[in-house]
Amino acid sequence: MKLYTSHRAPNPRRVRWVLAEKGVEDVELVELDIMVGEHRTAEYRAKVGVPHVPALELADGTTISESVAICRYLESVYPEPNLFGRDAAEQAVIEMWTRRCEFYLANPIMLNVRHSHPALAALEATQLPQVAEYNRLSAEKFMKTLDRRLADHEFIAADRFTIADVVAVVGLDFARLIKYRPPEEFTHLARWLDAGRARPAAKAGV
Amino acid sequence: MKLYTSHRAPNPRRVRWVLAEKGVEDVELVELDIMVGEHRTAEYRAKVGVPHVPALELADGTTISESVAICRYLESVYPEPNLFGRDAAEQAVIEMWTRRCEFYLANPIMLNVRHSHPALAALEATQLPQVAEYNRLSAEKFMKTLDRRLADHEFIAADRFTIADVVAVVGLDFARLIKYRPPEEFTHLARWLDAGRARPAAKAGV
Repeated sequence: MKLYTSHRAPNPRRVRWVLAEKGVEDVELVELDIMVGEHRTAEYRAKVGVPHVPALELADGTTISESVAICRYLESVYPEPNLFGRDAAEQAVIEMWTRRCEFYLANPIMLNVRHSHPALAALEATQLPQVAEYNRLSAEKFMKTLDRRLADHEFIAADRFTIADVVAVVGLDFARLIKYRPPEEFTHLARWLDAGRARPAAKAGV
Repeated sequence: MKLYTSHRAPNPRRVRWVLAEKGVEDVELVELDIMVGEHRTAEYRAKVGVPHVPALELADGTTISESVAICRYLESVYPEPNLFGRDAAEQAVIEMWTRRCEFYLANPIMLNVRHSHPALAALEATQLPQVAEYNRLSAEKFMKTLDRRLADHEFIAADRFTIADVVAVVGLDFARLIKYRPPEEFTHLARWLDAGRARPAAKAGV
């Protein structure tokens, strides 16, 4: 298998992190520079269908984009440690939290950064401070929900580290580009974030 | 099991549609009126954790929000007809297309409608025409990708109707609220949309 990836971009980092948690070393990494548009070439688009990283190319040539779909597929090939749930009910709870962390934390943070950071103006048709602010506030609203959850849970979705934690830490880390820090009142979130960042696999794809 | 749902809202409709495709009749439906905030009561938030519909309450009291997590769980209980894929590779392709249809079609359409329709001003802190327009253009960009895909595929993600089609039709149907129609040049999209709307299960939750 071949993984098309890009250093520092948050979605590829999710996949790199999952590979590292699982100790996988036999996936070939192909680094693309998205700042110069290497994901927009005709060759890449013909392969993946859309100008997105990450993408995973299987042995038969099938290519999968979308980080969470890739990670779930990797779990089927490398089942341990389990990151997506051991039965249907646990899978549902983990998917619920993963989606919440994507939609209400990682995505608004990404939009905040992309509409704030001067070097990322190249990725947006127009950077709008209004959009940046709206998304920062949205993300902080969900941080409050997460802080409450983490008051009596070590991890977000289960009694162990899962894909939901990967998505949430990667999302928050992306905001370091604009030197953003979560509000200090969220002490449980801060404890969980420090623990996530301290995992050896957290370094993958940074 | 009990499904908290709301007529005409797009995310609950995804779940109602999946139940109808599978011929499930033993899930109890609890209708909430989101326009008067029945999803914001203390009781509902205590159960679900967030003010979102749909939510599925399992026999043991576990409550799952997030429409796609709910639908995937329902597939584990009611496996046929298969909507999420029969093996890991097919599941990955279907999840990839489902996510694309959510993020690049259904979500921007929803934002377009919520920032355009006078009656939905209640759901937004501020309706911004700029946001509506930006999201309409984003959705149409992906419609072009989808139209190309549907030129030589009957369905979006597999050789049969899947959850990706549900998400995409429901997303496009939500735009009927503002009398939106996809650009006429997308003839393959139009053919597929007519076929999706004609399915008996398409009426569920409308």
